[in-house]
Amino acid sequence: MSEFNNVTVVKAANVYFDGKVTSRTVKFESGEAKTLGIMMPGDYEFGTEKKELMEILQGEVDVQVKGAEGFTRYEGGQSFEVPANSSFKINALGVVDYCCSYID
Amino acid sequence: MSEFNNVTVVKAANVYFDGKVTSRTVKFESGEAKTLGIMMPGDYEFGTEKKELMEILQGEVDVQVKGAEGFTRYEGGQSFEVPANSSFKINALGVVDYCCSYID
Repeated sequence: MSEFNNVTVVKAANVYFDGKVTSRTVKFESGEAKTLGIMMPGDYEFGTEKKELMEILQGEVDVQVKGAEGFTRYEGGQSFEVPANSSFKINALGVVDYCCSYID
Repeated sequence: MSEFNNVTVVKAANVYFDGKVTSRTVKFESGEAKTLGIMMPGDYEFGTEKKELMEILQGEVDVQVKGAEGFTRYEGGQSFEVPANSSFKINALGVVDYCCSYID
C-alpha cells in the first residue's frame, strides 16, 4: 500500500534526538495510529508503550530489541516488532525512511 | 488547523540533500497538495513549478526568493510565498518543521 487514504494527519512533526529522528502521526478511522518517520544516520534508543511494528521503507538499520542477544540488520521492505512496554536500540546506517504501526 | 482530516498521505518520504530535507506528501479531496517537511540545519536552494506557500511551523529560516535583494528571516507561525517557475534560497538556522502548499 503506497498511500494511506481517508486518514487524519497531525500537522506538527514529532521531533526526537535534536531532529535526527522526526515523524508525522497518521490516524485511521479505525482508531489505529501510525507514524511515518525519518532517521538521520546515528544510534538511537526508544521505549515502547504499545506493541510496535516497525517497517523499514528505505535504508538500513541494525536493531536490538530489549532482551535480544545481538543486533539484527533490516533493510527497505523488511520489518520487525517490538513488544509493548519494552525498548529497542536502532542504529541507522544511512538515512532511513520508516513506518511505525502502534498495535493495541 | 492542527490536523488535516480526510486526506491521503503518500507513504514514502520525499528526500532531498542527502536527507537533510525530507517531506511527506498530503493530498486533499479538492485536488490540492501540501508537503509536511523537516529541514536539518543548513543552506538549501529549491526551484518551484507551482506557486508555493511555505509556512514555518517551528524553527527559524533566512529566505531569499529569486530576485529579492537580501534574505528575510521567518520563524514558527510565519509564512512566505514563492512564485511559480522561480526559486528560493533557504537557510535553516536549526531544525525546521514546515508545511508547503502548492497553489494552482
